[in-house]
Amino acid sequence: MNYPKTIQNLIECYKKLPGIGGKTAERLALASMQLDDELIALFSESLVGVKTKIKRCNTCYNLTEEEKCMICSDQARNHDIVCVVEEPRNVISFEKTGTYHGTYHVLDGLISPLDGVNPEDIHIDSLLDRIKKENIKEVILALKPSIEGETTSLYISKKLEKENVIITKIAHGIPLGADMEYIDSLTLGMALEDRKPIS
Amino acid sequence: MNYPKTIQNLIECYKKLPGIGGKTAERLALASMQLDDELIALFSESLVGVKTKIKRCNTCYNLTEEEKCMICSDQARNHDIVCVVEEPRNVISFEKTGTYHGTYHVLDGLISPLDGVNPEDIHIDSLLDRIKKENIKEVILALKPSIEGETTSLYISKKLEKENVIITKIAHGIPLGADMEYIDSLTLGMALEDRKPIS
Repeated sequence: MNYPKTIQNLIECYKKLPGIGGKTAERLALASMQLDDELIALFSESLVGVKTKIKRCNTCYNLTEEEKCMICSDQARNHDIVCVVEEPRNVISFEKTGTYHGTYHVLDGLISPLDGVNPEDIHIDSLLDRIKKENIKEVILALKPSIEGETTSLYISKKLEKENVIITKIAHGIPLGADMEYIDSLTLGMALEDRKPIS
Repeated sequence: MNYPKTIQNLIECYKKLPGIGGKTAERLALASMQLDDELIALFSESLVGVKTKIKRCNTCYNLTEEEKCMICSDQARNHDIVCVVEEPRNVISFEKTGTYHGTYHVLDGLISPLDGVNPEDIHIDSLLDRIKKENIKEVILALKPSIEGETTSLYISKKLEKENVIITKIAHGIPLGADMEYIDSLTLGMALEDRKPIS
């Protein structure tokens, strides 16, 4: 004997999520039975909702329920600066800093020839278009410091060479609160090279 | 700016599940957007289903979609033996052994006066009723080896003292594949005490 069909189905669904194995899926399915009716209704509705209601912003490819995302349609923000990120979740991370008031551009991937991801497979063309059309003054490349991230940054900066736009890259260095002895030597080297005078 | 409302709602729902924190909930919600439409439909339906369709068996309190669970309604099983467990998930664990062919009784908790759980709060009365009415020959106590488990086992066996029924308890000892040096001394002591002759 196994769990009744409905529970079994729910376990299978949880198992399809990343990082959720059989045991955890079982625990989550049984825990779901204890949730309030309203929460279950919201849960079930939101699941369908993220598939049907959520679109990509027609300008920056951020997640949105409208044609334009909340950032692109916010006139109080600085539309002269674009911060280029890999995924929609990076937008939220930068927003949490509370210090950036420009716009974003979500590439939805990084150039990676080995994985068959070429420049035309991610939203680079639309970024180049935007920079020309919207009269953007600064492009901040905020991609992760991996081979793919560096390749993508390099590709974009080459493409923008002839445009009248400042291209910057976020700083790599020692994260705040880090224990110096656990920082890898590449990062330490970068931090040393990018040192700045104390004003 | 934060995620669009629908995603935010989904994150909040995932966060209500045990062991799922903010970061994981965010990851799961974003991953849910990538699931197939059919899977999302099944997921959403099963979530509502576990709240509406799943009931407790009217005999043994196991999870079921019918009045009686698959085990209680299976005439091929040995209805003379009842294995007493704490939770429905324990039934599945014992079923996976493939060696037990009797029935079960789910207590839905253990006696724990400190947490305000008294014998009348869990399904003990219905167990005693069943033993008298169904002419049960053996009751196997398969509760966890904790103070609550032992208290509950003791309480049930006291209550059944005058009944014509054999009461047994599952064996405690060294689990298969365990490294002897990591076994705690209480378990080792139990294993020693419950030693049996090699036949």
